Amino acid sequence: MTIGIVGGGQLGRMMALAGYPLGLDFLFLDRSADISVAKVASTLVGEFTDKKLLCELARRSEVITFDWENVSIDSLRALGRSASIAPPLAALAVSQDRVAEKKLFGKLGIPTARYAAIDSQASLVRALRDVGLPGVLKTRRLGYDGKGQVVVHSIEDAWLAFERLRGSPLIYEEFVSFDFEVSIIGARNRQGEIVVYPLNRNLHRDGILRLTRAPWGAPALQRSAATHLRRALEHLRYEGVLNIEFFVQGRRLLANETAPRVHNSGHWTIEGAATSQFENHLRAILGMPLGATTARGHAAMINLIGSLPSRDAFIGEHELHWHDYGKTARAGRKVGHLTLLETTAARRDARACSLLRRIDPASIR
Amino acid sequence: MTIGIVGGGQLGRMMALAGYPLGLDFLFLDRSADISVAKVASTLVGEFTDKKLLCELARRSEVITFDWENVSIDSLRALGRSASIAPPLAALAVSQDRVAEKKLFGKLGIPTARYAAIDSQASLVRALRDVGLPGVLKTRRLGYDGKGQVVVHSIEDAWLAFERLRGSPLIYEEFVSFDFEVSIIGARNRQGEIVVYPLNRNLHRDGILRLTRAPWGAPALQRSAATHLRRALEHLRYEGVLNIEFFVQGRRLLANETAPRVHNSGHWTIEGAATSQFENHLRAILGMPLGATTARGHAAMINLIGSLPSRDAFIGEHELHWHDYGKTARAGRKVGHLTLLETTAARRDARACSLLRRIDPASIR
Repeated sequence: MTIGIVGGGQLGRMMALAGYPLGLDFLFLDRSADISVAKVASTLVGEFTDKKLLCELARRSEVITFDWENVSIDSLRALGRSASIAPPLAALAVSQDRVAEKKLFGKLGIPTARYAAIDSQASLVRALRDVGLPGVLKTRRLGYDGKGQVVVHSIEDAWLAFERLRGSPLIYEEFVSFDFEVSIIGARNRQGEIVVYPLNRNLHRDGILRLTRAPWGAPALQRSAATHLRRALEHLRYEGVLNIEFFVQGRRLLANETAPRVHNSGHWTIEGAATSQFENHLRAILGMPLGATTARGHAAMINLIGSLPSRDAFIGEHELHWHDYGKTARAGRKVGHLTLLETTAARRDARACSLLRRIDPASIR
Repeated sequence: MTIGIVGGGQLGRMMALAGYPLGLDFLFLDRSADISVAKVASTLVGEFTDKKLLCELARRSEVITFDWENVSIDSLRALGRSASIAPPLAALAVSQDRVAEKKLFGKLGIPTARYAAIDSQASLVRALRDVGLPGVLKTRRLGYDGKGQVVVHSIEDAWLAFERLRGSPLIYEEFVSFDFEVSIIGARNRQGEIVVYPLNRNLHRDGILRLTRAPWGAPALQRSAATHLRRALEHLRYEGVLNIEFFVQGRRLLANETAPRVHNSGHWTIEGAATSQFENHLRAILGMPLGATTARGHAAMINLIGSLPSRDAFIGEHELHWHDYGKTARAGRKVGHLTLLETTAARRDARACSLLRRIDPASIR
């Protein structure tokens, strides 16, 4: 049974490595042949919107899924009913538009920062008045890893940001002062079974995730985030893994964004949970029973950005797991990650801090 | 960096899946293109003795290793010094000949059953007198999974077995009544670093491994087996993973055989140990620091023989891990395995027993 995957980055690669033991095969579609998955599975090379290739992918696959959410929904919709696609296109559409996402959160009673859709100078004026300053002006679409957003401290900032980003549909959001960021990952299968992983605490720098620690936080925070996630999974009649990121203010969660796919903050589940997010995504999109999400200990995941440090300086350490994505080095590029498992949260935190100091000192300044 | 692997069965497949996160690539040599590794890596198709293909494998690989020990040592030796081969050919040669193996055990002070090499009727007469009855007549070479051996209860049996097996060099061994079988797996790298996994208790039926439970047994048994293994690893200046199987009689260990490769009784290490045997084999043959062999809990591994049972009837259970080798069903063929992890040995044993009853009832009769 073959799974078709649009996008051949590290998420696709880790999905394939998780799926082979289940007896699955993989076929990827990517713009380049020089990608993370090239060594581990077959690839169709072409544009994500190429109808002929998408048709071939659909024909040769049991189900089509994604390693990248900014795919063309119109191209996929054109495949018609013959193609089985998961997660559902409606969930992809929501995640591609920050306003639709905020509206969905509102509808489901999930708190968010105040916001306003911006499509004109007049709407920006109204937004500055209603939402207030400081704020963040963002493109509604195609933003990731902090790209396409500007923090706005004054009316002048707002106009400069508007000039810089105009041409794209925009959203203006209240600037949220938060204590820290968390994310929650869960899966739902066709039959409606839902599993939720322990909460992740995330540290970003320059808009890129640097460190995730899980399980994290008080049971009340976990319960609250899990409730929000379940509500979204059920509402969307979701199939696959879904991630929601939140800002934490005291005991309050403010939903920031969703990712309708396996997520960087869930990489620790490969070694740190009874079933990895990659395996549960595959199980979910195929309607298989989901696997337990219990943590095996206390995990920390550190992203390796730009280039890999010397592997052999790290891998001799106890329960320290190396993940090289097979990508060429480039500034700001995620080229790998490492995960450590510890027996207590305190030990985990101490080791994570010391590792981060060795690997990515700037991120903990 | 590419690893060349002779043999493309499930052991090679699991090595590749373990090696990709380390940033390694793989190239296999196998007689068929329809093999376990075909989907996950590139394969050269031809005989294991094909000099041209072996040269190509050597040229394109950093180091050559094996998923199958009955390779032609002469063909590999002919590659000369240009090819880096691990484990060392001397260790392969020992494991291919039951008499050489027994001699090595003797030299290293590792107890074995009494035995005699058989190359004539006269030597069989002497062996029956010196070793006694009952016994087992075995081919010295190419035996695995119980093939090429006959249990002998009487002198008549011995002559019938001799007639049946003659033409091959033989060994006659004392028939050992034992309480149970164990195996121990460890790795040594080029720098002389050695790691040893917890002891495995193994259940065979019809010569095929059915169930492994690990960690197993009293610390004294573990220490004794580990001492024997370390002695062999050091004596052979070994690079890679080595397995030794023992019969247990009370507190006594009798070495039965070695496998100079990752071993079926170590499959539980994928989920059940801090570093899997597959990853440690790769680290060892590349001279990388070895990973910790600490058990993460109490594991049981059950082989799936002949054909796979219904996957979805099992994978919903907590910490139950499915491994489909991508092979076609055939009586007596290892087509997959499953591993369960539990928090106590008693729970592990109870669950393993119940699983075995569902999957392979004949094996626990």
